[in-house]
Amino acid sequence: MSQLKGACIFGQSGGPTSAINASAYGAIRAALDSDSITRVYGAKNGIRGALDGKLYVMEEEDASELELLKYTPSSALGSSRYKLADPDEDEKDCKRILEVFKKYDVRYFFFNGGNDSMDTCSKIARYMKETGYECRVMGIPKTIDNDLFGTDHCPGFGSAAKYIATSFSEIYLDANVYDTGMVTIIECMGRNAGWLTASSALAGIIGQGPDLIYLPERPFDMDKFLSEIDGVYRRKNNCIVAVSEGIKYADQTFVSEAKTSMTDGFGHAQLGGLAARLAGVVKEKLKVKVRGIEFNLLQRCAAHVASMTDIEESVMAGRAAVEEAVTGVTGKMIGFECDRTKGYSCRIKLFDLSSVANYEKKMPDEWINTEGNGVLQPFIDYALPLIQGETGMSKENGLPRFAKLKKVFAE
Amino acid sequence: MSQLKGACIFGQSGGPTSAINASAYGAIRAALDSDSITRVYGAKNGIRGALDGKLYVMEEEDASELELLKYTPSSALGSSRYKLADPDEDEKDCKRILEVFKKYDVRYFFFNGGNDSMDTCSKIARYMKETGYECRVMGIPKTIDNDLFGTDHCPGFGSAAKYIATSFSEIYLDANVYDTGMVTIIECMGRNAGWLTASSALAGIIGQGPDLIYLPERPFDMDKFLSEIDGVYRRKNNCIVAVSEGIKYADQTFVSEAKTSMTDGFGHAQLGGLAARLAGVVKEKLKVKVRGIEFNLLQRCAAHVASMTDIEESVMAGRAAVEEAVTGVTGKMIGFECDRTKGYSCRIKLFDLSSVANYEKKMPDEWINTEGNGVLQPFIDYALPLIQGETGMSKENGLPRFAKLKKVFAE
Repeated sequence: MSQLKGACIFGQSGGPTSAINASAYGAIRAALDSDSITRVYGAKNGIRGALDGKLYVMEEEDASELELLKYTPSSALGSSRYKLADPDEDEKDCKRILEVFKKYDVRYFFFNGGNDSMDTCSKIARYMKETGYECRVMGIPKTIDNDLFGTDHCPGFGSAAKYIATSFSEIYLDANVYDTGMVTIIECMGRNAGWLTASSALAGIIGQGPDLIYLPERPFDMDKFLSEIDGVYRRKNNCIVAVSEGIKYADQTFVSEAKTSMTDGFGHAQLGGLAARLAGVVKEKLKVKVRGIEFNLLQRCAAHVASMTDIEESVMAGRAAVEEAVTGVTGKMIGFECDRTKGYSCRIKLFDLSSVANYEKKMPDEWINTEGNGVLQPFIDYALPLIQGETGMSKENGLPRFAKLKKVFAE
Repeated sequence: MSQLKGACIFGQSGGPTSAINASAYGAIRAALDSDSITRVYGAKNGIRGALDGKLYVMEEEDASELELLKYTPSSALGSSRYKLADPDEDEKDCKRILEVFKKYDVRYFFFNGGNDSMDTCSKIARYMKETGYECRVMGIPKTIDNDLFGTDHCPGFGSAAKYIATSFSEIYLDANVYDTGMVTIIECMGRNAGWLTASSALAGIIGQGPDLIYLPERPFDMDKFLSEIDGVYRRKNNCIVAVSEGIKYADQTFVSEAKTSMTDGFGHAQLGGLAARLAGVVKEKLKVKVRGIEFNLLQRCAAHVASMTDIEESVMAGRAAVEEAVTGVTGKMIGFECDRTKGYSCRIKLFDLSSVANYEKKMPDEWINTEGNGVLQPFIDYALPLIQGETGMSKENGLPRFAKLKKVFAE
């Protein structure tokens, strides 16, 4: 494969994670160091930046600030949820991107995101090939949801899982401090896949995990739920429950969206989450003290408790995308292949973008217990290596020292 | 003062914090090392353990596990919210405690807690004096609320403040990632005093703090609140708001408890918190995207992001209680006197238990801005030293390695 010289664009997409900027660092650093890549642009707000030609010049950034991206949560270049039009139906978006690519002599496009982003990548790769514009397109995965096809796991998941397991272990101690009983219901993210909620079970290896775990992979039954909490509470005078935001009744309706007459004191519709709702039902039916907790955004941005394994693998994924592309690879997503037989090792594996796009990977059924209220050892063996290691986050004034980018626009 | 030889009881009370076990470590370690103290007991579930004679023998614990208490959140010996009867009205409780003290030859009583606990200490000290039983009683403060009288600040506050400031700095990045606007409302603890909510402003020193802060010290006005959010949102296309759970209308009713017709989809009363409620109002009135977040229990138990300054001072407070008592001091609460003129230094100061009990210290009015929607530099200067330093928490398997106590009962 002959050398392809030209500029590259790197973009971030979808919901942020604690590790997405680590992949940005890996890709940007490798691109800056590459002989083939003449200029490194960062797209402002993901695909929108590529469409509008709003590009940051990464050569303008200080190397030390770029390195701090490893420990900076959220998407430093900005994200977007814009869904690129399918070029087979409406060429407008892709045509616009091609114009931007030509204008800036962009020959490499690196896009970091989840399912939808891999779909975006796939469309762009196809369009560039069809129009005969030589450009190598690579997808870099990220999602706390861990639901991407093919790859062993997704960058960003390990840090979210570590936040969840650590927080459960701390809340466990707090919830057991009084001589009076208590039910604690904790809601984790994961609309369709239970990976994050299942991670609460990792706190079980130090004896501080939840008593019951409810995932979207199994139908939710309110009577069964109440009866199982009652059983644990009677035995232990305490019960800690992990629920996924995405639990659904057998008829596929979300428990969080069940018909409701909720209004608050001001006559407005109520936005309270699933944990608060379930806490209300438990209090009413079981007549016990109950607390509902929603981890909310911190699951995806609590970089102060990120997994160093996740950070290092995320950097590796970003770097690999650039290194593979300059050797001639295109139309692929970077993924991981892991070996857990002797310790843990992780290496890069490539997947066709078209096979990854728009497919959601759920928890294997055999990793969930028969009762549908807990996870089994194979999940622990799978997830535990992913939360290992503490990050090297710098602090200033007792607070995180995040990357400060200059964000100088091209032209 | 002649040497007083005998056993001691150490107890924990009230809501847990990330640092309360650090004070336990300081006191227990100093007591074990003291020539005057013949036996060191830990009360199971605070004052209940002293009433029921449920005492753990601290000599049975491994020194290395005791030391891990510094980084273990919650109350390792258990807590209680039992309110001791006033001996002037009903002697029963104090009489029972005196019997336990006599049985175990207890000559020192160390009690670690907030306002109510200092009241408990005060009653016991008075009763022992009146009945002529020689026993030295010392209070060790702790409360994330930082509302104890006299002392510069309270052990436990710095760690909670660090959690809050760190989380705000991370959520700030997350909330600014999209090209679409967003209002984020974050609820912090603090029923009557705004110290914790004010701590969100510490994230402002890295430019990532809230735009608006509402404290219980100023009356809450919904129209003003909406107008102020609207103003920030129009200017920045984004607005991050910190609210204290304890904000009250001018008529002294809690905003969180305003009359409500809330029921959830199952016909039960709704437990959703203040953040969800306010988010509902903002969404309805301002027609913007809004997210309500409640930090909940993690504020008081997220030991993984505790302040080392807080941990060290909490150890010092526990140790000082024992050291002062063996030299003859009794009826006092350990407090801090700090100097912020040249750097920061903190030393022990003693306060009469009777002066501390049942008094709540609020934020000084002059530290709150005129508009009542932010805090001023003197608060930053006050609080910033308290969140400095990272803890030495040990990890195992990527999770915190908390203290494991044997908890062997006396007799």
